[in-house]
Amino acid sequence: MKSSVYIVLTFILSVFVFFAVPVVVSAAEGGGKGYFKALPQIAENPENPVTKDKVELGMLLYLDPRLSKSGFISCNSCHNLSTGGVDNLPTSIGHGWHIGPRNAPTVFNAAVLKTQFWDGRAKDVEEQAKGPILNPGEMAATEELVLKRLRSIPEYRKAFKKVFPGEKKPLSYDNVANAIGAFERTLLTPSRFDKYLLGEEDALTSREKRGLNTFISKGCVGCHNGVGIGGASLQRFDYGTDQGRFEVTKNEADRKVFRVPTLRNVELTYPYFHDGSVWSLKEAVMIMGEKQLGLKLKKKEVADITAFLKALSGQMPEMTIPQLPLSTRHTPRPDVSIEAGK
Amino acid sequence: MKSSVYIVLTFILSVFVFFAVPVVVSAAEGGGKGYFKALPQIAENPENPVTKDKVELGMLLYLDPRLSKSGFISCNSCHNLSTGGVDNLPTSIGHGWHIGPRNAPTVFNAAVLKTQFWDGRAKDVEEQAKGPILNPGEMAATEELVLKRLRSIPEYRKAFKKVFPGEKKPLSYDNVANAIGAFERTLLTPSRFDKYLLGEEDALTSREKRGLNTFISKGCVGCHNGVGIGGASLQRFDYGTDQGRFEVTKNEADRKVFRVPTLRNVELTYPYFHDGSVWSLKEAVMIMGEKQLGLKLKKKEVADITAFLKALSGQMPEMTIPQLPLSTRHTPRPDVSIEAGK
Repeated sequence: MKSSVYIVLTFILSVFVFFAVPVVVSAAEGGGKGYFKALPQIAENPENPVTKDKVELGMLLYLDPRLSKSGFISCNSCHNLSTGGVDNLPTSIGHGWHIGPRNAPTVFNAAVLKTQFWDGRAKDVEEQAKGPILNPGEMAATEELVLKRLRSIPEYRKAFKKVFPGEKKPLSYDNVANAIGAFERTLLTPSRFDKYLLGEEDALTSREKRGLNTFISKGCVGCHNGVGIGGASLQRFDYGTDQGRFEVTKNEADRKVFRVPTLRNVELTYPYFHDGSVWSLKEAVMIMGEKQLGLKLKKKEVADITAFLKALSGQMPEMTIPQLPLSTRHTPRPDVSIEAGK
Repeated sequence: MKSSVYIVLTFILSVFVFFAVPVVVSAAEGGGKGYFKALPQIAENPENPVTKDKVELGMLLYLDPRLSKSGFISCNSCHNLSTGGVDNLPTSIGHGWHIGPRNAPTVFNAAVLKTQFWDGRAKDVEEQAKGPILNPGEMAATEELVLKRLRSIPEYRKAFKKVFPGEKKPLSYDNVANAIGAFERTLLTPSRFDKYLLGEEDALTSREKRGLNTFISKGCVGCHNGVGIGGASLQRFDYGTDQGRFEVTKNEADRKVFRVPTLRNVELTYPYFHDGSVWSLKEAVMIMGEKQLGLKLKKKEVADITAFLKALSGQMPEMTIPQLPLSTRHTPRPDVSIEAGK
């Protein structure tokens, strides 16, 4: 997207936030449901239809450490399916114990967000999946290595052929990402808040509803809205030294601009913010009030909002631990070496 | 165990190997079943009874990276339940990207083996579980850190109390190991060979039976026998520079003495030997013939033995990916730092 478009977008969103507060107060009286949307069953992508076989293949790839140079790191290492889809570290560990620059966003419900990564540099989970595999400080592989590894394994060759029928080269790097993306499109976690949005009034406690109202009336909803309760826009957040989207676009308007994270399962995805510097959810709420809304939220308001946020912890999909197919004598071997200077 | 006992043991075992070959040939004519034992349902330990709740708790702990200093490495990182209970690396990666000295043995069926670790320094899986957590080059934690982390999490406090009723301090380091051990006691993988041992003659193909006969008649069975098809004794293996059990006992008789590994799932647990230097199962069989039996096995013999070994790949237990309980504000935070000199 062109930088001029972003300036306009930023302007429109600022206006929206500015006017959101008064509009929202009355909406909150009606339960404020209009700002949000319940999760779908699957986050469909017309360009990458979700099929059972594709999801199964994607899950194997998601868990397969052979997608990394070392053979030790998988997608699941940092986006752990047992810990809210994150690693609960301030910033992630990669190849050679490289400590990355940013906190790992959760894989759960990532597929419903409008952009991926903290700087929004990928448009969907398919595009996102391609990044960390090749990042020298994360999985440190190359496309060539990944394809050589996977093509050396008959079960993978067969699965790609079945999942992407009629394609000339079904086992391509694009399709690795498509399969992982399809798996991630099933990783949705409906919560009590979704039940509430769908009309079950008692799904939230009165405290959680009060928190929801405060969340709306104070203006949090200006950015944390929609199906992801976040993830639909990029916003300036002047916190720490990270220059955010500016690092990608080198456009001044993008300085310290970050994708608004989803708040679904936020209780599980500590520590908070792009640098993972804040461990307490209440503290994160206070900082957001101060920095983004210019408000000093009262202790009770913070407690109520936090109670609402905990109602966004969803039902995790039930998954069986799979067995990965075996390497063969043609499979390029793990390489744990750390290149000089990295 | 005293070193003198080991000298006697080594002597007895040498005699056993010496006499095993001729005895075995005739036994092979009867199917050779007497040398082996089918897997039990659960590998019971009277000192640590296996209960459903204990197994569930053990599985959480097995997968919990908070048992490591960094919060990044769990038991499962190197003994991966999706890849034959190993990491398929020559030697494992630990805290700070430390490359360990030995190949990670499989967790599957480890509980039926007589000793644990390549040098047999732990008597059972409970004792084994305590080692890597504290090893500075593996999970790099301390008992104190592990207990502080777990005691800060109400779900763990509750689970330990329930699983170890009547104990004064149920959440102890011993009980962490007991829970993990109990989980591992369920990780048994019955194979077609077990069906064969239990009387199902057709469970093995004629080639696999031929391989079994060769395995017995050539003397492999001298060490690879019993329920683990290995794991019941320690033997000298003069291969590479690793001094084996000598490193623990400093006893000359233990130089280059290693625990005989289980051959169950050997097809999955490449690369082979204590240093993970051999990737091909056939090559490993050839080397064992040469080094341990003084035989140059024929190509067909190696192929037949390998076919038999592949029949030892078992049925993996079906396990659901669990959700780990959340940290609290009292939970000691991850520490990814690498101490100077390590």
